[in-house]
Amino acid sequence: MFKLYYTPGTCALASHIALAEAGAPYTTERVDFKTNQQNSPEYLAINPKGRVPSLVTDRGILTETPAMLAFIAQSFPLAKLAPLDDAFEFAKVQAFNSYLCSTVHVAHAHKGRGYRWATDEASFADMKGMVPKTMGACFALIERDMLRGPWVMGEQYTVCDAYLFTLEGWLEGDSVDLSTLPKVAAHRQRMAQRPAVQKALAEQ
Amino acid sequence: MFKLYYTPGTCALASHIALAEAGAPYTTERVDFKTNQQNSPEYLAINPKGRVPSLVTDRGILTETPAMLAFIAQSFPLAKLAPLDDAFEFAKVQAFNSYLCSTVHVAHAHKGRGYRWATDEASFADMKGMVPKTMGACFALIERDMLRGPWVMGEQYTVCDAYLFTLEGWLEGDSVDLSTLPKVAAHRQRMAQRPAVQKALAEQ
Repeated sequence: MFKLYYTPGTCALASHIALAEAGAPYTTERVDFKTNQQNSPEYLAINPKGRVPSLVTDRGILTETPAMLAFIAQSFPLAKLAPLDDAFEFAKVQAFNSYLCSTVHVAHAHKGRGYRWATDEASFADMKGMVPKTMGACFALIERDMLRGPWVMGEQYTVCDAYLFTLEGWLEGDSVDLSTLPKVAAHRQRMAQRPAVQKALAEQ
Repeated sequence: MFKLYYTPGTCALASHIALAEAGAPYTTERVDFKTNQQNSPEYLAINPKGRVPSLVTDRGILTETPAMLAFIAQSFPLAKLAPLDDAFEFAKVQAFNSYLCSTVHVAHAHKGRGYRWATDEASFADMKGMVPKTMGACFALIERDMLRGPWVMGEQYTVCDAYLFTLEGWLEGDSVDLSTLPKVAAHRQRMAQRPAVQKALAEQ
């Protein structure tokens, strides 16, 4: 049995969808950012980084979305959520997920979490103003070079799709024009029709 | 045969060390940031993100350090650079590497690459001023909660160690006081004695 700590609107949705796609037994527990629950002693004992998601497993606790997604795929091989028998294709999955966490998510975070990297209100405003451009550039690259179609890795649906869908959900709030990203927009619609995605969204 | 595109002083060193540790057949090619070679048409054809590292393999090109490190470990299992037979321990390796790329490297990048996320000189200075604090906090967490010792994952040396060593090399330039990080400092010294580390450093 797995337990996923999540907050709505965060990248925790990716792992939530992956658990649902895998048919994994899981429960969820919401972490309330409004009361700063992520920095409570109870939650810091689960994840000392004070972030979501965290995944409690029978073996221990995992954090970091790319690691959790690969773990879910490896733990439920029959769900075929990653090309587990091909190290190169598996690396392509990982490279995509790594780009999302280290570049795309980071670009988005400069809208509302500038205090992580600066102290002045003027810097926060400056950072916030760049987000449509940086997120637009990231997704233009995804549209042009990464999203093979119909799924990220081509014909095979993988955990990359759950992660990409999660970040696609931030585009409107980040003032990125989806009409310039037809493949991304179609991917988002395709994802929204999957039962596992609907299940995860309903549970959040 | 692999070909690693790298620039000295960047995170490409992690994959360079891993290739040397694995006993992999490889060549290296230096990308010159001073002449903006990373954004030349020739290099963008290899990595459209305009970043290092890139790893050319017989199957195609890989980018993103965590993906490359896991791929090298999986491609040379006899080198035992990751716990490949244990999905949970492998996920712990991945979680560590993901933290380095998405949080620690990003914290460091705000010193000299603020233009990625803002436009004003005042914002760049603000960001730069935060780096000793953010990098210090990241490494305090690594010291306290992540570095099991003697290696990151405990008794077993893994690709995490190559990656951590690479970022440890940035601490002095980021004005982080290593005397507050005895486990990290000892890890760095331990790494510097490994033949593969010395080989990679000499080749750069």
